[in-house]
Amino acid sequence: MALPKLQIALDNGVLSEALASISQVGDEVDVIEAGTILCLAEGMEAVRCLRALYPEKTILADTKCADAGGTVAKNCADAGANWMTVICCATIPTMQAALKEVQDLQVELYGDWTFELAAEWKQAGLTQVVYHQSRDALLAGETWGEKDLAKIRRLVEMGFKVSVTGGLEVETLPLFAGIDVFTFIAGRGIRDAADPRQAARKFKAEIARIWG
Amino acid sequence: MALPKLQIALDNGVLSEALASISQVGDEVDVIEAGTILCLAEGMEAVRCLRALYPEKTILADTKCADAGGTVAKNCADAGANWMTVICCATIPTMQAALKEVQDLQVELYGDWTFELAAEWKQAGLTQVVYHQSRDALLAGETWGEKDLAKIRRLVEMGFKVSVTGGLEVETLPLFAGIDVFTFIAGRGIRDAADPRQAARKFKAEIARIWG
Repeated sequence: MALPKLQIALDNGVLSEALASISQVGDEVDVIEAGTILCLAEGMEAVRCLRALYPEKTILADTKCADAGGTVAKNCADAGANWMTVICCATIPTMQAALKEVQDLQVELYGDWTFELAAEWKQAGLTQVVYHQSRDALLAGETWGEKDLAKIRRLVEMGFKVSVTGGLEVETLPLFAGIDVFTFIAGRGIRDAADPRQAARKFKAEIARIWG
Repeated sequence: MALPKLQIALDNGVLSEALASISQVGDEVDVIEAGTILCLAEGMEAVRCLRALYPEKTILADTKCADAGGTVAKNCADAGANWMTVICCATIPTMQAALKEVQDLQVELYGDWTFELAAEWKQAGLTQVVYHQSRDALLAGETWGEKDLAKIRRLVEMGFKVSVTGGLEVETLPLFAGIDVFTFIAGRGIRDAADPRQAARKFKAEIARIWG
């Protein structure tokens, strides 16, 4: 089982705040995500700035693209993103059009997606999915549980690289022990820590402890 | 039956091109949409510029928001948008959080949404939906047909204000005769016309002819 990667989600509403966050942890993480909030607030300039500062890192544009996949993906790639996200209710043609323009594509799992649909994504050439606790669902009191872990295991068994996100803390990681998680995506769990660099290192250390 | 509105979708990838488009037709249309492509490319600056140029018009930010509804909606409202969109696979808490921040919210219908789900949106206070032919589906050869019209009629019967979009031309409008469409959303059918202002006027005239 490979060591899961650590991804920082920059869901800041202002570019300068995203840069303040990343300047503290950019060297510690494996994947830098321009979050949906940031992309919608600042546009692809946010991705261009992240690429300028971190020429060697994997950068993900979390567009949650639902349509016009080719155009959105080309704009992301032109700005310097390696990967982008599409929403699970996008059509297969949208996903395929996007996949042509970026190095890799992640399907974001929200709402009532099905494993039948996931099989279609697999057949269409998609390799990555992101399993979520929605930010708003978390606010409404939902938490990680066995029902989530069972779905994640099944997606891994289908051959997907599965990233996991939503209210993740260092203390949440042991829940996923024994599951071949591709990437843990943390946002405020790192950004809002008193010492974000230290928080990122704690995530990495706990990942190494459990999966190493 | 009220006269359907006309909405222009600015799906340009560059702000200056969106402004070039809207400068020709802004006075002719009822709703100005900062398209997803434009929002992701240029951020909320696109909405701020449209609001600066058209202080009296209804402006829609087509974010197709899937999560963090409250934050995304507040950013849209702060930039000057009246309405924004959420994707149909967003959770109800996401939709409700967004609805608190903007004047109105549209649910974008993509993929395998169900009428059961639509009933939940209604109960949650949502009043607007957007019925689509996906841009990529159109590219893959799909067209408007009776199956679309039946679904639109049913959504109208449920009490939704239903906007319609996807490859619309003036010649497509008679298909919808007899249906209480809230808004027709046209993009390239107006923007890419030899004379966009004339094209917008033709849409308005045909709407008046059929629904007047």
